[in-house]
Amino acid sequence: MEYWALVTGAAALVGLLVAFTYSRMVTREDAGDEKMQSIAAAIREGAMAFIRREYQVLAVFVLVVFALIAIFIWYKPVDVVDGQRVIGSGVYTGIYTALVYVLGAICSMTAGFVGMNIATKASVRTTRGAEKEGIGKALTIAFRGGAVMGLTVAGLGLLGLSLVYLVFVKWWQVVTDPAGQASIIAGFGLGASSVALFARVGGGIYTKAADVGADLVGKVEAGIPEDDPRNPAVIADNVGDNVGDVAGMGADLYESYVGSIVAPITLAATVFALSGSSGVVKGMLLPMMIAAVGIISSVIATLFVRSKEGSHPARALNAGSYGAALLTTIGTLFVVIFWLRGVESVKNPVGFWVSIVSGLIAGLAIGWISEFYTSDRFPKVREIAKSSQTGPATTILAGFSEGMESTAGAIIMLVGAIAAAYLAGEWAMPDVANSGIYGIALAAIGMLSTTGMTVSVDAYGPIADNAGGISEMSGRPPEVRRITDSLDALGNTTAAIAKGFAIASAGVTALALFKAYTAAVGITVIDLARWQTVVGMFLGGMFPFLFSSMAIKAVGRAAYDMIEEVRRQFREIPGLKDGKEGARPEYARCVDISTKAALKRMVPPATIAIVSPVILGLWDVQALAGYLAGALVVGFLVAIFMANAGGAWDNAKKYIEAGNLGGKGTPTHAAAVVGDTVGDPFKDTAGPCMNIMIKVMSVIALVFAPLFLR
Amino acid sequence: MEYWALVTGAAALVGLLVAFTYSRMVTREDAGDEKMQSIAAAIREGAMAFIRREYQVLAVFVLVVFALIAIFIWYKPVDVVDGQRVIGSGVYTGIYTALVYVLGAICSMTAGFVGMNIATKASVRTTRGAEKEGIGKALTIAFRGGAVMGLTVAGLGLLGLSLVYLVFVKWWQVVTDPAGQASIIAGFGLGASSVALFARVGGGIYTKAADVGADLVGKVEAGIPEDDPRNPAVIADNVGDNVGDVAGMGADLYESYVGSIVAPITLAATVFALSGSSGVVKGMLLPMMIAAVGIISSVIATLFVRSKEGSHPARALNAGSYGAALLTTIGTLFVVIFWLRGVESVKNPVGFWVSIVSGLIAGLAIGWISEFYTSDRFPKVREIAKSSQTGPATTILAGFSEGMESTAGAIIMLVGAIAAAYLAGEWAMPDVANSGIYGIALAAIGMLSTTGMTVSVDAYGPIADNAGGISEMSGRPPEVRRITDSLDALGNTTAAIAKGFAIASAGVTALALFKAYTAAVGITVIDLARWQTVVGMFLGGMFPFLFSSMAIKAVGRAAYDMIEEVRRQFREIPGLKDGKEGARPEYARCVDISTKAALKRMVPPATIAIVSPVILGLWDVQALAGYLAGALVVGFLVAIFMANAGGAWDNAKKYIEAGNLGGKGTPTHAAAVVGDTVGDPFKDTAGPCMNIMIKVMSVIALVFAPLFLR
Repeated sequence: MEYWALVTGAAALVGLLVAFTYSRMVTREDAGDEKMQSIAAAIREGAMAFIRREYQVLAVFVLVVFALIAIFIWYKPVDVVDGQRVIGSGVYTGIYTALVYVLGAICSMTAGFVGMNIATKASVRTTRGAEKEGIGKALTIAFRGGAVMGLTVAGLGLLGLSLVYLVFVKWWQVVTDPAGQASIIAGFGLGASSVALFARVGGGIYTKAADVGADLVGKVEAGIPEDDPRNPAVIADNVGDNVGDVAGMGADLYESYVGSIVAPITLAATVFALSGSSGVVKGMLLPMMIAAVGIISSVIATLFVRSKEGSHPARALNAGSYGAALLTTIGTLFVVIFWLRGVESVKNPVGFWVSIVSGLIAGLAIGWISEFYTSDRFPKVREIAKSSQTGPATTILAGFSEGMESTAGAIIMLVGAIAAAYLAGEWAMPDVANSGIYGIALAAIGMLSTTGMTVSVDAYGPIADNAGGISEMSGRPPEVRRITDSLDALGNTTAAIAKGFAIASAGVTALALFKAYTAAVGITVIDLARWQTVVGMFLGGMFPFLFSSMAIKAVGRAAYDMIEEVRRQFREIPGLKDGKEGARPEYARCVDISTKAALKRMVPPATIAIVSPVILGLWDVQALAGYLAGALVVGFLVAIFMANAGGAWDNAKKYIEAGNLGGKGTPTHAAAVVGDTVGDPFKDTAGPCMNIMIKVMSVIALVFAPLFLR
Repeated sequence: MEYWALVTGAAALVGLLVAFTYSRMVTREDAGDEKMQSIAAAIREGAMAFIRREYQVLAVFVLVVFALIAIFIWYKPVDVVDGQRVIGSGVYTGIYTALVYVLGAICSMTAGFVGMNIATKASVRTTRGAEKEGIGKALTIAFRGGAVMGLTVAGLGLLGLSLVYLVFVKWWQVVTDPAGQASIIAGFGLGASSVALFARVGGGIYTKAADVGADLVGKVEAGIPEDDPRNPAVIADNVGDNVGDVAGMGADLYESYVGSIVAPITLAATVFALSGSSGVVKGMLLPMMIAAVGIISSVIATLFVRSKEGSHPARALNAGSYGAALLTTIGTLFVVIFWLRGVESVKNPVGFWVSIVSGLIAGLAIGWISEFYTSDRFPKVREIAKSSQTGPATTILAGFSEGMESTAGAIIMLVGAIAAAYLAGEWAMPDVANSGIYGIALAAIGMLSTTGMTVSVDAYGPIADNAGGISEMSGRPPEVRRITDSLDALGNTTAAIAKGFAIASAGVTALALFKAYTAAVGITVIDLARWQTVVGMFLGGMFPFLFSSMAIKAVGRAAYDMIEEVRRQFREIPGLKDGKEGARPEYARCVDISTKAALKRMVPPATIAIVSPVILGLWDVQALAGYLAGALVVGFLVAIFMANAGGAWDNAKKYIEAGNLGGKGTPTHAAAVVGDTVGDPFKDTAGPCMNIMIKVMSVIALVFAPLFLR
């Protein structure tokens, strides 16, 4: 039975092969003339330089954590065999977990590298495609570029987990204890989390430092348009789109994806304990089977993304997203019924399918709520735009209160999914402890099973954005820019939905991991009546606020350095501002400033996120549970609030720029720009970091559970 | 032994008598010339009109809740006497709780009325005192005005509780069940909470609608100075100081004060159960004894507030605050040792004293942290002022991130106090269940025992502020304004500290009430591993965000109406803007707009706060516990964040206005004004509402506990 892991691995390989094919298709496209290529090369070099240096920092970090896990984590060091105390199998937990951890990290880094590599290639080809053949071609190239990232993320995640399962659970049965096995599998999740944490925090700081810096000096002070090649920070700004929106978002969803598969695997051991060893195996493999269905569905759905002449490109992307969701919904119904047949304790397999679907629906619904609050087709954004008429203060207050309000809908969807998934899980396995919690974990997978498609659609956005930048800098005719702008605008909406999805999935995944942690440390009750739990909860609730504060301050300081550098170049390089022939800005210095700032400032918050759960866990396992719960609730709220407030401000500004309420150059527009600038680090730095933070804390708790139990 | 409640009642009466004396002293002062008196009368009328109408709304509300309590709450409706089932004593719980509820509400309304009445009288006399005799006299009048409010709040709270105890627990022993008694006593707290909720929300909306409206049209559009009599909203603005900062803050701290005494009383029944009935009585009376010490200490400490010639008035106020704290610290040591002698299960009475003092210290420390983040003597405010040099966006981001950061220090103090109070409580009564939780409840009283002084010092601020307004409007010489301004500036700092205190005490009181609720519904374990608890916690965490959003929107809309009205008057009343003789603005219409807006918009959020815990409790008592926990953690964080961010923006603006970084009229100043305007509804509307919200939810849960158990 365990060999079904080969099937899931094969599905993952299919995803990777299709990704490779799309990658070849993209690179075979025309890369444009020399000027376009030289600009694209500059962006590419900046992005690659950043990722190389980020990975150097990460390598040190991963090695340290590797050593800590190998040394400190073991489980049941002593077994009793025939009345004799012998060294227990659990002593190997640490070294295996550590190895798997490194594998998880390497897979994540590889996915990030591959995705960014193709994104930087796809963007210039998208510009060229728009120029030569129009919007249909541009859309195809940009989407295929995104799909490479999407399918690589999902494929490497599932392939890695399938291998870990086969090697460490099936073949190399040294660690036989379920808790030890759980720790080993969770190691893969921790690897994903470590990389994601740094990629998100570093990428988020990078992209906004460059963006804010470029905008404030370029557009506001010097009065030159966006993406103008005279602006020394313009390359850094475009690099930022890649390292933040492609690599950062990809690593984020990779982590959610892996985490959502890890959580039910680790829960399966206890939930299916009464169903015999074959039941446990089935329970452990079910999440991977669902993920396999999701990958195949995503691969098929990529074929639906075709731009017909005259039809809106949004249709094409929606066909992909909803197609993948629909195929997964149908596919998982068959898989659940087929796979759980014969497992005696599962009375109603369809119950688990309901759990899966409730997650999928909640993910979509939270995405729609994000759209409602952040799209100018709906009243919220227009009201913020209107409030800009009375100045920046009312703009801020309006966006702030709408962002806070938006948490209500998201939370109601989330708790609805939790309740439905739990009750359906209990119905599936009546009278089995934790079956409802297994249902919640399946809801997380349901939400994330179509990660391949979600990331594809999302990574498409920054590619289109970069294509616009390249068009501007290389002096293409304005109609090219118009095409890329329309693709980019669409990308903003898909990005908002993907952000909602990323947050929702982070919330549910963290909840599932939280449950997995409590199962691993064997606490059946997390008692809020204990003072330690209350203390943990207050500290956990505070941490998202502290983390956000650190992230926002990091952007502010890095942007300040960037502004100084741009001012210096305008001052010292003769003729630069007026665009004289031969006056070339020193792009590389700006790229360097963003890179250094991001790498330096990502370390303190990331370190606290990783170290604090261990400290609390060593003190009191329930205090850690309270800590995770507090961080989860507050982190989720802050993430939703920041994403939606930031998105709404951004689009209120764009709504005014489109000519409404007086348009560009009015005081109303100036007020809206203030809102947008405030929203930038909310939605692209601090907010997304919350997703990772809540997951990384839970997975740390899960991996280090054996340490806390000693 | 129960007759010691007469002693605590007597201490309360002493406080009330001193309040009466101060009131006579203030009213005997010179009220100035006719012009001053007519302005003061206008403010007074506006304030009284508002409070009358607010109380009308409240009366309806209180009657409805009275009926609901009387009908729905009963406890153990059936007793078994000699094998016969008879109507149980618990059926009377509802009607008694309802009566006590009304008493609690009436005491709170009375305190609010008395405090506002004297505040409106004291402010004009402060102006006159400043004019005739200088700063010493002005300080004395303003402080005595505040002390009337402070001592009335504490006196009525303790007197009411002493009476309730004597009547319903000692004499009229129909309800003998401890849980029923707890519900009756908690009824007093709910009465306080109901009034506080409406007073805070309504007052907060009123004051900021008037303030923002008056500022935006007056200062910004029409270019006339603050408090200029030509501005039609100026009276409403001054009324707002009274209804928001005097009545609202007073009701808030009254509620905390009552709640902090109620919580340990209701816990005492279980904690002292092993010590026999005399032990239970001692445990129930101890909180009142501590409160009595606090009142007497506050009364004595009011005598320390004397302004010596040449010394800074801050010294005088600090002498009062620290004097009261010190006297309470010493006094409670003796009381605890004396009172708990002979209670066998209390091994180390000093332990409870440590609990009390840990609360007192945490309250002061959180106040200091507030000061650190909101006073321009410290770097944070100066950095925000500096960030105004790069425009409003960076001002907002700086204040936002500092506000978020400030939660860390406050939370650490809070959890430190929780841990210390718990462990000290356990040490005091080893091996007794919940003794640590009783310790936490005592920490809340420790923090609030000096409420008499805290409110005095705090209510002094708006009196000085109003005195400045009256001076301006009545055309006093500038040196009068200078004196009131210096008193007002000092008031800003004391207000920030009092705000920190109010939040800290709300947090600890809510926690103690939360524990009292769980004891009342008999859940020894609040299990976060149950899905219902998790759902409750997410919903509870969301509520402060939703509430804040509603409060901020209410201010925005009311301010908008106010702006429209002021613009209309400037347009339609000939000569008003230029200050021509005979052109009088219609102040009353502006007062009316604020009043109506506040009354209308306070109802929806307040209703949700009151109804939602009942709905959750009827569904699942643990879900309600999760709801309370989520709301407590998030509400506390939001309260601290908003108070400190708002205070910091306010003082950054004042710092620039004092001539730093270019001073008034520069773009830097304009950016700082944006920060201040955003901060206004944060610190004076939404933020303070959080205090009440978290307490009112807990006390609702406590009062309705019998309903959930049926």
